[in-house]
Amino acid sequence: MRIGIVGLGLIGGSMAKACGHVEGNEVYGWDIDMSVTGRAIDEGVIRGILEDSLLGTMDLVIIALYPKDTIEYVTKRGDLFRKGGMVVDCGGIKELVCDTLEPFAKGKGFRFLGGHPMAGIEYSGFDHSKWTLFKNASMILTPIEKLGDPELVWVSDFFRSLGFGAIKVTTPQAHDRIIAYSSQLAHVVSSAFVKSPSALEHKGFSAGSFRDLTRVARLNEHMWTELFLENKDNLLHEIDSMIGRLVEYRDALESEDKVMLKSLLREGRERKELLDARQQATVQQEQATGHQEQATGHQEQ
Amino acid sequence: MRIGIVGLGLIGGSMAKACGHVEGNEVYGWDIDMSVTGRAIDEGVIRGILEDSLLGTMDLVIIALYPKDTIEYVTKRGDLFRKGGMVVDCGGIKELVCDTLEPFAKGKGFRFLGGHPMAGIEYSGFDHSKWTLFKNASMILTPIEKLGDPELVWVSDFFRSLGFGAIKVTTPQAHDRIIAYSSQLAHVVSSAFVKSPSALEHKGFSAGSFRDLTRVARLNEHMWTELFLENKDNLLHEIDSMIGRLVEYRDALESEDKVMLKSLLREGRERKELLDARQQATVQQEQATGHQEQATGHQEQ
Repeated sequence: MRIGIVGLGLIGGSMAKACGHVEGNEVYGWDIDMSVTGRAIDEGVIRGILEDSLLGTMDLVIIALYPKDTIEYVTKRGDLFRKGGMVVDCGGIKELVCDTLEPFAKGKGFRFLGGHPMAGIEYSGFDHSKWTLFKNASMILTPIEKLGDPELVWVSDFFRSLGFGAIKVTTPQAHDRIIAYSSQLAHVVSSAFVKSPSALEHKGFSAGSFRDLTRVARLNEHMWTELFLENKDNLLHEIDSMIGRLVEYRDALESEDKVMLKSLLREGRERKELLDARQQATVQQEQATGHQEQATGHQEQ
Repeated sequence: MRIGIVGLGLIGGSMAKACGHVEGNEVYGWDIDMSVTGRAIDEGVIRGILEDSLLGTMDLVIIALYPKDTIEYVTKRGDLFRKGGMVVDCGGIKELVCDTLEPFAKGKGFRFLGGHPMAGIEYSGFDHSKWTLFKNASMILTPIEKLGDPELVWVSDFFRSLGFGAIKVTTPQAHDRIIAYSSQLAHVVSSAFVKSPSALEHKGFSAGSFRDLTRVARLNEHMWTELFLENKDNLLHEIDSMIGRLVEYRDALESEDKVMLKSLLREGRERKELLDARQQATVQQEQATGHQEQATGHQEQ
């Protein structure tokens, strides 16, 4: 399969490397930083530069740019993609991108599919990319127009070949709503947490909880600012809801309401235990069914 | 050395196991749950029950109970501890315990030393205890009356023999102030975070950041309620300060102030990078000096 990768940062670079590990794939790539593209060629990660003139020869184009750059890249090259080919993006918000590009692509005779690989580390750029980044991660797909079964199997098998452990199909709206919590709020909270003046004195006074809470504060503020603004309403709702919950703890503490404080903490523990139990049940079910559920993806539309 | 361990939960059980791994130590233990004490004997973790009548024969007694239980245990047995012996506790707050027990012990002819091992996992109880729990962790000591040099070396060497990588000496007040952030606020935030209704839908939509943020929500609400209430003012200050920072992000987002939002995120990233760099520098310094600084502890009073 001929695959083009646009944007060779952490995600795009890792996609290119993972694609290169599958026999039969021919991978071309492009990055706005030509020194990165050159390094990707030198290191044998890509066969060559994904010039615009090559787009029409690609079975699949994976775009790993920021959302607005993705929209610009695709709309500017609408006539160049292969008719009947597929373009998948990797951005962290989906409604804006899919609402724009899926109908656009349909009009041009190719398929645009919103994608979001649930993998990432607190470092960005090609230097940190690795072919194992997606191992056992979840790949979220957000088609507006339902994927046909053969297409879904094909796409699922492809991403599974890169190491993904689960394919999750949902709507762009549902994606953006849930991701506002599971990823975006987590980054806001970590960033706000690390900025306590007390953090400067923490050395020797911290263990795993501090390390966990602060890890993703080391974020790329350019990317996350864009993602947050493009998911404003969902994220605002989550931040407000988080503040509301923190106020419950502080009020219980201020009034020394031991029963309430214990109850608030118990609710959190029980919620975490429920989530862990569900996770465990899924793993066991997958082991029992030999990943059948995952092999076809779950299309929840 | 004859060592008594009071309370055989996660911390006390791990202390008993770690002490048993050092040649020459004779370890006795006691837990309010006699079945736990019995299991610790059966598994060879302790030689026998730490009856009150044995307290006078112990060189060192380590108390791993909740703070109020620690105060009760020691004050009720004031005349039973060995004159000139040492009693160290392991509780998560220090001012209340040390202000009460250090002068009390002095009057009875033994030394009480506040301690806080910066190790823990999200599970509690003897079943989860392990002799490696303290490996490379920091042991905080909070004497009100400065330790003499030989005493400090002795205590430091002892805890280092259990696997601790650093001995940190500070005041009970400073401990409680910093721990309100580095540990207590981390638990409050994790507990509040996991309770978003969106958490129930996160499966397939989360990666490392979600896992990190929710890990310690699985906490022991009985212990943490007590620790929070006994450190009320410090923790209230940290929660309020956290809420204040979250409000800055939400306001920037609501007004779509891209410059401000990016600046808030950049500050968090830079803070995290600063902390990581300091951590790295400490590790390198320790490697260069062969841990000399740690061997004597740092007494910051």
